Amino acid sequence: MNNSLIRASVNAAPGYVPGEQPRDAGVIKLNTNENPYPPSPAVREALAGLSASSLRLYPDPMCKALREAIARLHGCAPANVICGNGSDDLLTLCISAFVENDGAVGFLDPSYSLYPVMARLRGLRTVSVELGARFESRLPPEGVPCPLFFLTNPNAPTGYLCPKDEVRAFCRRQRGVVVIDEAYVDFASGDCMELALGLDNAICLRTLSKSHSLAGLRLGYAVGPEPLVNALFKVKESYNVDRITQALALAAISDPASMRAGVEKVKATRARFSRILSDMGFDVYPSESNFIWARPGARPAGEVYRELARRRIYVRHFEGPRTGDCIRITIGADGDMDALAAALRDMRA
Amino acid sequence: MNNSLIRASVNAAPGYVPGEQPRDAGVIKLNTNENPYPPSPAVREALAGLSASSLRLYPDPMCKALREAIARLHGCAPANVICGNGSDDLLTLCISAFVENDGAVGFLDPSYSLYPVMARLRGLRTVSVELGARFESRLPPEGVPCPLFFLTNPNAPTGYLCPKDEVRAFCRRQRGVVVIDEAYVDFASGDCMELALGLDNAICLRTLSKSHSLAGLRLGYAVGPEPLVNALFKVKESYNVDRITQALALAAISDPASMRAGVEKVKATRARFSRILSDMGFDVYPSESNFIWARPGARPAGEVYRELARRRIYVRHFEGPRTGDCIRITIGADGDMDALAAALRDMRA
Repeated sequence: MNNSLIRASVNAAPGYVPGEQPRDAGVIKLNTNENPYPPSPAVREALAGLSASSLRLYPDPMCKALREAIARLHGCAPANVICGNGSDDLLTLCISAFVENDGAVGFLDPSYSLYPVMARLRGLRTVSVELGARFESRLPPEGVPCPLFFLTNPNAPTGYLCPKDEVRAFCRRQRGVVVIDEAYVDFASGDCMELALGLDNAICLRTLSKSHSLAGLRLGYAVGPEPLVNALFKVKESYNVDRITQALALAAISDPASMRAGVEKVKATRARFSRILSDMGFDVYPSESNFIWARPGARPAGEVYRELARRRIYVRHFEGPRTGDCIRITIGADGDMDALAAALRDMRA
Repeated sequence: MNNSLIRASVNAAPGYVPGEQPRDAGVIKLNTNENPYPPSPAVREALAGLSASSLRLYPDPMCKALREAIARLHGCAPANVICGNGSDDLLTLCISAFVENDGAVGFLDPSYSLYPVMARLRGLRTVSVELGARFESRLPPEGVPCPLFFLTNPNAPTGYLCPKDEVRAFCRRQRGVVVIDEAYVDFASGDCMELALGLDNAICLRTLSKSHSLAGLRLGYAVGPEPLVNALFKVKESYNVDRITQALALAAISDPASMRAGVEKVKATRARFSRILSDMGFDVYPSESNFIWARPGARPAGEVYRELARRRIYVRHFEGPRTGDCIRITIGADGDMDALAAALRDMRA
């Protein structure tokens, strides 16, 4: 029912349905790309050292210490860096800063399902670029007519990494801002950070949610040319990153070795489990992320998804003409993956 | 310099200038309405009980446990409650959910300086309602032509509380949504929560930043009719409140006695310091908040502000035709207020 107090585009949007977050013991949760390993011990130490009384004071609105650490990590200036309340915050800020009311938001199809939702809530048009037959990115040589394009790389839910040279050529042709959403890049064989530091229209987005095992903390950041970063600063809320998040994120960023060790374990499991799935007859797409995108060989993907859920193993299934044929499996701890393999064998998937 | 990649309204906005946040020891900081007393001991205990490894998992996107506690506090249903990353997050969501691109945002003048900034960044019109001669709210009998009106109550930076009956009459006449921003209401002699639970167009905003001494945590919430709260859920980011904030805010909300004890101390200091200022010749406006709004008797307000800053005592001065005559002084610990009184006497303010 429409309510005249509410904006038309919001009235028209479907109700908010949060993703499945089963939390009871015994559930195997491989549906939201969380990392199975704990965050860096430095995060635990920073947490133990926090003072409750300091919470009476506002956080640093500029995230100075954290941005300096991120700038050192990527070899750029703090002025090239902005932090957000998760990278979703930064996606919203990009739409606010770079798209006029008659503008459009572009993205790959399929890709992160939040982009079109965000665009439509603001009443903006969307332009999508269909992926190839094997879900590879095919960036159109003539560019895409939109002031803002979200290029998820590696892509989700498919795991495909578009090579840097192809992304560079696309950014050079593109007349608007290209946001390279690198949420999964620490699990990949390459990244595009040098484009964000070399071109005037490219921004890289990173998050601590996946490789740093800090999905519960909400810290994302963007790196890019200073004029674009300044525009994001203008539209952000003053105190968008709280004191505790700034302190714990700084601890995590300062211990890349621990992050890398966890990433290597995930990648080893990904290789092992990809072979297991292939041997079972799944069509497994090459993954550069912490999940696997695969088409079951014997039974429809939706059926496999539902049967696994009945067995209290949660993976992800996206309805739709192309995505509906596949399931997305987050790489979990080895024991959970073994349980999943046993269930799939038992189901003759 | 304009940048064609950036939205016109954002290009036109002034650069981001964070408020003064001097943090070195020896500074007396009475400029951002922070609470001088620590948060509830329950927050300290909850902090000590947090597990770093649980941060690998996403937070509850619905903030279920926290919303249930807030609903119990106000005698409403969890469906009437939404939580945000500070109440600034909720202000942004209200503009997103209730204002079309050709709509306007209304507010008192002077009031919270963020409202016009937010509206202009989205390219929206603004409508302001001038306060009376003594900075009292004078809500126009015919209503204000805008789909969204922010009514700060008690108002900032003036400390005036508009009586509930006047607010109710205004909401009834108003054809759009009225957001009653009650950031300071725990320091006041009344509140408007019953309007948010009784009318179909009123929302109350609360924050843990002031009375709960948790400015560094970033937790605000809105209470209102279910259709409006549902619209805010549609436009919010899925994981806008992190795991730690949910846990610590729940601890704070569950210990109202500790909050009330701190509030009573602030109110006692407010009464004492108001008399001191009056005795010095200041024109002191009656405050229902955790700050005092006052006009110096002998020297211009801007001069008093700058001289205090030289003495490393920070209060707030808002340039402008009416606000420029006054300073806003956050109520701090008694020792800090005594130091401020001594400085003002010494300066012959």
